[in-house]
Amino acid sequence: MATTVALAQLNLIVGDIAGNARRVIDCAARLRGKADIIVFPELTLTGYPPEDLLLRPACDTRVASALKDIAQSAVGVTLVVGYPAMRDGVRYNVAGVVRDGVVEVEYRKMQLPNYSVFDERRYFEPGAHAVVFEQGGGRFGVTICEDIWFDTPVQRAAAAGAQILLNLNASPFHQGKAMEREALVSQRAARFGVSVAYVNLVGGQDELVFDGGSFVVDAGGAIRYRSGMFVESEDIVTIVDGAPQPGEIRAFASDEAQVYGALVTGTRDYVTKNGFDSVVLGLSGGIDSALTMAIAVDALGPQNVEVVSMPSRYTADISNQDAARQAELMGVAYQVIPIEPAFEAFLDMLSETFAGTRPDITEENIQARCRGIILMAISNKRGRMLLTTGNKSEMSVGYATLYGDMAGGFAPLKDVPKLLVFRLARWRNRDGEVIPQRVIDRPPSAELRPDQKDTDSLPDYGILDGILALYVEQDRSVDEIVAAGYDRPVVERIARMVDRNEYKRRQAPPGVKITRRAYGRDRRYPIVNGF
Amino acid sequence: MATTVALAQLNLIVGDIAGNARRVIDCAARLRGKADIIVFPELTLTGYPPEDLLLRPACDTRVASALKDIAQSAVGVTLVVGYPAMRDGVRYNVAGVVRDGVVEVEYRKMQLPNYSVFDERRYFEPGAHAVVFEQGGGRFGVTICEDIWFDTPVQRAAAAGAQILLNLNASPFHQGKAMEREALVSQRAARFGVSVAYVNLVGGQDELVFDGGSFVVDAGGAIRYRSGMFVESEDIVTIVDGAPQPGEIRAFASDEAQVYGALVTGTRDYVTKNGFDSVVLGLSGGIDSALTMAIAVDALGPQNVEVVSMPSRYTADISNQDAARQAELMGVAYQVIPIEPAFEAFLDMLSETFAGTRPDITEENIQARCRGIILMAISNKRGRMLLTTGNKSEMSVGYATLYGDMAGGFAPLKDVPKLLVFRLARWRNRDGEVIPQRVIDRPPSAELRPDQKDTDSLPDYGILDGILALYVEQDRSVDEIVAAGYDRPVVERIARMVDRNEYKRRQAPPGVKITRRAYGRDRRYPIVNGF
Repeated sequence: MATTVALAQLNLIVGDIAGNARRVIDCAARLRGKADIIVFPELTLTGYPPEDLLLRPACDTRVASALKDIAQSAVGVTLVVGYPAMRDGVRYNVAGVVRDGVVEVEYRKMQLPNYSVFDERRYFEPGAHAVVFEQGGGRFGVTICEDIWFDTPVQRAAAAGAQILLNLNASPFHQGKAMEREALVSQRAARFGVSVAYVNLVGGQDELVFDGGSFVVDAGGAIRYRSGMFVESEDIVTIVDGAPQPGEIRAFASDEAQVYGALVTGTRDYVTKNGFDSVVLGLSGGIDSALTMAIAVDALGPQNVEVVSMPSRYTADISNQDAARQAELMGVAYQVIPIEPAFEAFLDMLSETFAGTRPDITEENIQARCRGIILMAISNKRGRMLLTTGNKSEMSVGYATLYGDMAGGFAPLKDVPKLLVFRLARWRNRDGEVIPQRVIDRPPSAELRPDQKDTDSLPDYGILDGILALYVEQDRSVDEIVAAGYDRPVVERIARMVDRNEYKRRQAPPGVKITRRAYGRDRRYPIVNGF
Repeated sequence: MATTVALAQLNLIVGDIAGNARRVIDCAARLRGKADIIVFPELTLTGYPPEDLLLRPACDTRVASALKDIAQSAVGVTLVVGYPAMRDGVRYNVAGVVRDGVVEVEYRKMQLPNYSVFDERRYFEPGAHAVVFEQGGGRFGVTICEDIWFDTPVQRAAAAGAQILLNLNASPFHQGKAMEREALVSQRAARFGVSVAYVNLVGGQDELVFDGGSFVVDAGGAIRYRSGMFVESEDIVTIVDGAPQPGEIRAFASDEAQVYGALVTGTRDYVTKNGFDSVVLGLSGGIDSALTMAIAVDALGPQNVEVVSMPSRYTADISNQDAARQAELMGVAYQVIPIEPAFEAFLDMLSETFAGTRPDITEENIQARCRGIILMAISNKRGRMLLTTGNKSEMSVGYATLYGDMAGGFAPLKDVPKLLVFRLARWRNRDGEVIPQRVIDRPPSAELRPDQKDTDSLPDYGILDGILALYVEQDRSVDEIVAAGYDRPVVERIARMVDRNEYKRRQAPPGVKITRRAYGRDRRYPIVNGF
């Protein structure tokens, strides 16, 4: 006998319990008659991660009320929905099987991740029991996200008779994660002889992007179905005698395409879910702002992006030309506001205080901060969110000015190392020049003093990014990094810069996590740090 | 037979494993012959909280090496020292009993806090076994911090024969915490018939201040000894037949004195542990900057504090006079830099872009940001950390300018509600006027437009702080706050402001936690939030 299962890969909004419930109810109405079972992402009703909203008693009240509405719509279709549930004074991360107008049974998540960006033991206690329900002759087990990375929950479901596991997920993106996830689930399926329908959340939430890419593997571990990444979908898979029938298997895009997709999704959702529809950014003629602008245009449309060029006495002519040219290429509103008058005013106001001192980083920072004021003024006046353009390499070593080029609501490239910035820029130009080639080819410079180049203060980006990957993402010691082939004085200096600049990162805007370890909730370092 | 126990209430540095070990070894050398046992704070060697430094393999290597040095110094004296320990691939939060040159036994913390500011389950697995050792005829049990808030660890130690528990702590301050802690430990002691020596860490670490206040209760729950708060100490208590002999019981200071002590300690340690010795701040003539300056002077000395008055066209004369007078009263270097030239320059540079628009919050923010640039320039040029002056009430509702008055390295009043700012200012004036009385008496104003008062945009601070305490610290819903006697439209507006301004707080500098729930690690809210 055949059962149809819909994988509801939805983009939900954290905290909007009534709105998320409406999405579930609409989906049920739309798919009734087409699907027997609809599976939604983990914590469907609160969105993920709800963080300390879970501690508000009002959260429980709203979930309970939303669940009543959902139950009424579960007629002629079975809904498997995620939500937090207080049961006997203990909070669980639950998947409810809602059928014939009632919540028939609740599965409690067994494995609670408390590493990386996850804090689930802050909120939940683990469950211990498998849940298996029958429908159309098939036996469906329920598990939630992290459960499937461990044997016990799968083993218990299989022992309880499950032929196919419905696994509800909120699994965030990083490079290579989609393939990693599928390989692992496929192994687990084969080991325990159960099929798995893996339904993932899609969309951005603060620093995380959920990439979707829901999929189905059969009990031999073979992939039977794969949804798209970074898009909502409600695809339907047919199960016959517990075995998923073949369906569409969308190919994985390239690494660059996946990362770019995550950046566009994360930027679009952060801007729009915060109630903005447009952005402003400073366009310097350099590659970081060029790529940031391309992402903004792809996320929001050229009519919702405004760029400002703010030259100083140190800005090269070709920087101004390249900025203007890119704005034209992408059809974006562009204006030029030289910063000299404000810079001069500050130098003059401080001349007495600074009498007898020599120009140093102070004057460089004043320029960057004059630009920050202009951009924030435009942001404030027009209600456009300011995007900052710094990349992960700079954020790591503090090569950025607080309240200057770090000013802004969102930092699309915050977790993108410089070498990957170059790769993404080239990739974005694959169907024609959008970012002027010269912007990609020129040696990077902050243009805050005459003839400045990034390499005056930093090693080549090839070396810098290599050291940073080992130190930040892999927690290697200086000795180990030296043993990997880098110069000791350079490694020591970079490690010290990373440690000392935690204070800057703590005041940086959020950005999209795309690597295995991003700054933010993913890497919790002390500021005062004598390590 | 008598045993002497020293309570080593030390101010340690997170991550400085070699330095912290040196403190232990120095202490052992100094007290050998005076104390039989020295008890140190929780995670002595790493400091607390070490956060993700614990994930670096180099952390384990350094701890192991430090432990060898410490063991060599444990001759003629028993040291009870805290550190993280990987045992069979599992990390525990451990207290080692170090005697006769070896680590004799290790106690593994059983209760791992994972709420509020704590993330211990991110790093540690819980232990399960009591540790009791004998010395001088007494039987000493070992427990760690959170353990003593639960029955099981104490029960197990008592069952294993402990007469007195040595409890190693890193317990951070909030209002009333010292008394709360003592009452609880006293109950636990009486219930299980064991004495308790409670040794707490002291000093600031990022947003936390550990208040010390180590104490000893006897097996009847009576207080026998109490150390000072916010100071290092190495006091010695005598134990006869498992019973602590009476010693000095220092009185608790008033709430204002405790909070002020926490603010001074937190500010001093954040500045100096980050390698600075002086600070700069903007003095507006208002009460927040006045109190911040007093804290800075008490933390670092008047010679290490520099203040700048930055009047605009909207600054009242008495603001300038009061600022000058306070600087004089406290002996602090003071200068005046009017912001008009820079403000004018920006208005002019933006005149074309803003043609046809009316002045709004944009122009107010430009003023605040001009001040931010001046202060950061002085900070950069002279190597002085910039202190921001905003209070918790403002930070809650976003009544502050990002990159303007929010610019700075540390925010001493970040967790101090406005009404408490007033109480602390009056308390600081108890022995003579330090903060001019007029500063305390004038209605608060941001002075960013003509005749502006805080009450133009906000309810009276009495009402605002009342609502915020219920909403932020106690997680009450709007309905519950209305039921407590506040106007619904006001409550709804304030709740919305708190939710919407999470993005500002995410870019705010750290400040000292003094309430039950501070912003920062203590309250993890999503920015995108549809709740």
